[in-house]
Amino acid sequence: MLSLEQNIDTNALGERMYGLAKRLYPICRSITGNGLRETLRILQGEIPLQLHEVPTGTQVFDWVVPREWNIRDAYIKNSRGEKIVNFHEHNLHVLNYSTPVRARMRLGDLRPHLFSLPEKPEWIPYRTSYFNENWGFCVSHQQLESMTDDEYEVVIDSSLESGALTYGELTIPGQSEEQILLFAHCCHPSLANDNLSGIATVLELARLLSSASPKYTYRCVFAPGTIGCITWLSQNRAELHKVKSGLVAAVLGDPGQMTYKKTVFGDSLIDRASLHVLEGKDAQFGTLEFSPYGYDERQFASPGINLPVGRLTRTPNGAYPEYHTSADNLDLITPAALGDSMATYLSILALIENNLVYQTKLPYCEPQLGRRGLYKTIGGYGNPKEGELAMLWILNQSDGRRDLLAIAERAKLPFHVIAQAAVELSSAGIIEEA
Amino acid sequence: MLSLEQNIDTNALGERMYGLAKRLYPICRSITGNGLRETLRILQGEIPLQLHEVPTGTQVFDWVVPREWNIRDAYIKNSRGEKIVNFHEHNLHVLNYSTPVRARMRLGDLRPHLFSLPEKPEWIPYRTSYFNENWGFCVSHQQLESMTDDEYEVVIDSSLESGALTYGELTIPGQSEEQILLFAHCCHPSLANDNLSGIATVLELARLLSSASPKYTYRCVFAPGTIGCITWLSQNRAELHKVKSGLVAAVLGDPGQMTYKKTVFGDSLIDRASLHVLEGKDAQFGTLEFSPYGYDERQFASPGINLPVGRLTRTPNGAYPEYHTSADNLDLITPAALGDSMATYLSILALIENNLVYQTKLPYCEPQLGRRGLYKTIGGYGNPKEGELAMLWILNQSDGRRDLLAIAERAKLPFHVIAQAAVELSSAGIIEEA
Amino acid sequence: MLSLEQNIDTNALGERMYGLAKRLYPICRSITGNGLRETLRILQGEIPLQLHEVPTGTQVFDWVVPREWNIRDAYIKNSRGEKIVNFHEHNLHVLNYSTPVRARMRLGDLRPHLFSLPEKPEWIPYRTSYFNENWGFCVSHQQLESMTDDEYEVVIDSSLESGALTYGELTIPGQSEEQILLFAHCCHPSLANDNLSGIATVLELARLLSSASPKYTYRCVFAPGTIGCITWLSQNRAELHKVKSGLVAAVLGDPGQMTYKKTVFGDSLIDRASLHVLEGKDAQFGTLEFSPYGYDERQFASPGINLPVGRLTRTPNGAYPEYHTSADNLDLITPAALGDSMATYLSILALIENNLVYQTKLPYCEPQLGRRGLYKTIGGYGNPKEGELAMLWILNQSDGRRDLLAIAERAKLPFHVIAQAAVELSSAGIIEEA
Repeated sequence: MLSLEQNIDTNALGERMYGLAKRLYPICRSITGNGLRETLRILQGEIPLQLHEVPTGTQVFDWVVPREWNIRDAYIKNSRGEKIVNFHEHNLHVLNYSTPVRARMRLGDLRPHLFSLPEKPEWIPYRTSYFNENWGFCVSHQQLESMTDDEYEVVIDSSLESGALTYGELTIPGQSEEQILLFAHCCHPSLANDNLSGIATVLELARLLSSASPKYTYRCVFAPGTIGCITWLSQNRAELHKVKSGLVAAVLGDPGQMTYKKTVFGDSLIDRASLHVLEGKDAQFGTLEFSPYGYDERQFASPGINLPVGRLTRTPNGAYPEYHTSADNLDLITPAALGDSMATYLSILALIENNLVYQTKLPYCEPQLGRRGLYKTIGGYGNPKEGELAMLWILNQSDGRRDLLAIAERAKLPFHVIAQAAVELSSAGIIEEA
Repeated sequence: MLSLEQNIDTNALGERMYGLAKRLYPICRSITGNGLRETLRILQGEIPLQLHEVPTGTQVFDWVVPREWNIRDAYIKNSRGEKIVNFHEHNLHVLNYSTPVRARMRLGDLRPHLFSLPEKPEWIPYRTSYFNENWGFCVSHQQLESMTDDEYEVVIDSSLESGALTYGELTIPGQSEEQILLFAHCCHPSLANDNLSGIATVLELARLLSSASPKYTYRCVFAPGTIGCITWLSQNRAELHKVKSGLVAAVLGDPGQMTYKKTVFGDSLIDRASLHVLEGKDAQFGTLEFSPYGYDERQFASPGINLPVGRLTRTPNGAYPEYHTSADNLDLITPAALGDSMATYLSILALIENNLVYQTKLPYCEPQLGRRGLYKTIGGYGNPKEGELAMLWILNQSDGRRDLLAIAERAKLPFHVIAQAAVELSSAGIIEEA
Repeated sequence: MLSLEQNIDTNALGERMYGLAKRLYPICRSITGNGLRETLRILQGEIPLQLHEVPTGTQVFDWVVPREWNIRDAYIKNSRGEKIVNFHEHNLHVLNYSTPVRARMRLGDLRPHLFSLPEKPEWIPYRTSYFNENWGFCVSHQQLESMTDDEYEVVIDSSLESGALTYGELTIPGQSEEQILLFAHCCHPSLANDNLSGIATVLELARLLSSASPKYTYRCVFAPGTIGCITWLSQNRAELHKVKSGLVAAVLGDPGQMTYKKTVFGDSLIDRASLHVLEGKDAQFGTLEFSPYGYDERQFASPGINLPVGRLTRTPNGAYPEYHTSADNLDLITPAALGDSMATYLSILALIENNLVYQTKLPYCEPQLGRRGLYKTIGGYGNPKEGELAMLWILNQSDGRRDLLAIAERAKLPFHVIAQAAVELSSAGIIEEA
């Protein structure tokens, strides 16, 4: 039995994950460009990640890989020459994918290019315009309100040129060709919970799985959201039939409760495994039905792709106030929350790894467990121990079709208790793998 | 998209429906005879209704069309020659289908032929004896109690003779041979809610559908309850396989909440459509499981007929105190309630008309909606608009088998939002009818 | 219609059942031996039970019939020669299946062979060691605590020798070869609720069924728990496919509410019948999902046997404090509770006996019931009588596949009302058995 979860100090892992987030936080990422590339190269320093560069103009299903965006500087100066908005102070200040601008204009002309959050006047919003040529600045509402009808110098020193979209992938071979997919988006600039927490989670999972000789083959993908996921799917189409289950990892560092969003199927293995693990944890959690909005679970759920990929986050996107603002920073995420998220992912993967299907070799009535040292010898006591009950359930239900998770669900026993009992029955030669 | 419900002033329709009810109220209808015939001819003045006369003695499944009943006068006179019960004052006073009588008798002999409602002493009950030869008078309990042991002159000037059972039907051809059935019973004398409200509803629906070029063929049937419905089914047996859905319309003028009674199948299209519309209205409503008692939904549900015909009423038969009494009169029903019932029927029919099945032409990942002007161009905001979300759901679910209603149900969005989004996606060439 | 439940005085039956329990209570039963044999012979005096002796050493699936155990005496004497524990005072005092012992020893050596219940210091526990050679005494915790570090004379005058396992069976032939199984374990010494109440129930059922000309064949089995049930199944394997339904009867004399434990299928006929009867009784009851622990329902549920055998008890095993102690005595059970249990079993068997499948001969619309005297002749009244409604449901649902129980469930009417209406419709020639 592969034991991913035991003997692992998830608190220490949480600290290491936080450290990675801190290192990646200052980089200005986007769906293409050097910030994205630098991020993936840092990950490459940790695990043997393979980087893929997909050229601008490549058709990926209904989309086309866009020109590569890079940015060096951006600011707004008032008539006194003071930089009142400065990209180097916070890289959310620029509308992501802004075209280059170098102009002087009055506030009236500049105003449509300024984005703020009136309801959170101190925070800078995160806004993008990937596929519609535009430029702009994101500012705190306080900044916006303090701007007078002055003449402003507006500079965005960016470029949109033929280049590539970069993504990284590590395939960890297992005994089986069946694949488990772990996907993190990595296109968000200076956003800690939405982006860096997911990257750190998949990175540490990849590191642990690499040394665990897993049963399944794991594909750990770090790619830009939407266009990057679509690009990966387009480039790996011939392999997709091997994907058995998957999880989209994101928003895993905030102190809120964990939230599982179901696959479009609703009751696939990854749904059952994730919910079983969450129900077994001593903590509240949320469940969301599938909807075709959110992170890239929606690409996997499209009718032509049709893969059972769930999503496991803490507080979901859009449900915490700091979402897509400058307040989604290193203060929002904690090592403890990252470690707890990691522990949950490990339990789910351990469950899937150990979710075998057995067939009893002694189907007629109960086998005599006591004779084999598997059951108490003094009779008359009220109830069997949990492990004994687990054996009785396995013997009753192992018809060569039901997996151990189905037995755990019906028995209302933790999966690890059922799995341990199955190991003992198998060692005693009473059941065998189907 | 057929829009039955828009640009229609259902308040004005409610007034017109009330006017029709007022005109039909005084007529003494029964399951055969001239009152029934006169009623149908008045409807013929409004819509091109076809009248059918089915002769007495015709076998209709397990039943036989009975002799035609007509009545000219009926009264009870006391020994002083005073008419204490007079058919011309209220046509509920006679037991419907009474055989002719002309006799003098003491109260003791008359008493078994008098019907009253002790719990509602001012109201005259509605009673019938269609298939068992009998005669009688229905009186208020106050009247009954005031009768002394006098000798009474009892006259019922009725006839039961070979004739016909009359029903009316209007078929409105659609683009499809598949039929939607709308059925109203029209055999009740001077009962406003139970009878006239349903007749008025089907009449106005027929008028609107006639000018709407509907997709489906509509059959609007006005027939006596039970025997009339059985007669219609018997005479149309070869056509019944074309019936896709149907509704029995009755009790639609009282101010109570609407109530949908499910078909015997429980989850057929008409069940899903009716409940979706009722759930989307800003008003409470009731749901009844199918039972083989009530109006003629029970004939459609019989094992040999087996058609998905639901029933949509306001307060159901038997659940309002005025039911089957003289208090079910023109004061019980209101133009506003009639108009609201009408609006609900129109929404249900509009849903069925527009409930198409699409197949996405771009099944691999999300299509790029922004490029086609179908999605916001600035990214980063929390949630998409309702119409955008509807598009994402349609793209995710349109596999050529699911209808738009199923998508609306899963998306928990109003059908009209889904239908409108489907029109836009179809116009953009992204989806096509399956 | 077989009417098992009518004209039976279940109170009087309860008294007779209590009398049997009283007669059997003093006998020291075990899974083999003379106590068991004597018990079955007493039953043979009441019904023509067939006794089977299965020799020691017989292989029964994964088990082997053990040596036969008999006991004559057992005691512990202190150094003053006082018998401080005496088998002849209570036969629970000896660990059931104890090997013979004759020794003197200090308390320290005796202590591991003493069993008590600290939480119930006045009660003697019931403990066994059938398949692991051991010896011991069960004592009240008070007794145990009063024992000093003395030298004790320890005697168990028992034997474990080649012999047989005894079980009893009565087959009551029915019109059909399909079998209903009634199973009671009979291996417990001096335990009234757990053992004797179940024996008395199956005995009285057997007596009533023998004179009832039932539709199904009944197999009434009295056998030791676990090994006896496994032996019976092993010896009757070729016949098991005839078993349509079954009930394990035990713990039926305490004053608690009745409890039905579902078969491993969860919705088989015996599940539906039992729950319908319990829901129709004017008393609270409990429902347990299947689990592979409890009484011998778990043998019937094993994957190779796979029979729909439920379990009907009052307060379940392990859920009442007196369970498996000397307090499960003749004071715990009452004639009233035994009679009520009996009445419930009879209702369930009557339901199964009368649960026919009909097909309507008049499937097109409602048949005209009034003409046949089966429906009221005056129309207009609110609601039909229960019996009339039952007829409408049967006519609507009798498609030659649904049984009467399914119709009762959907109609939410008591089974006996549906069954009576079916008899009337059948007599009128409107429906026929499918």
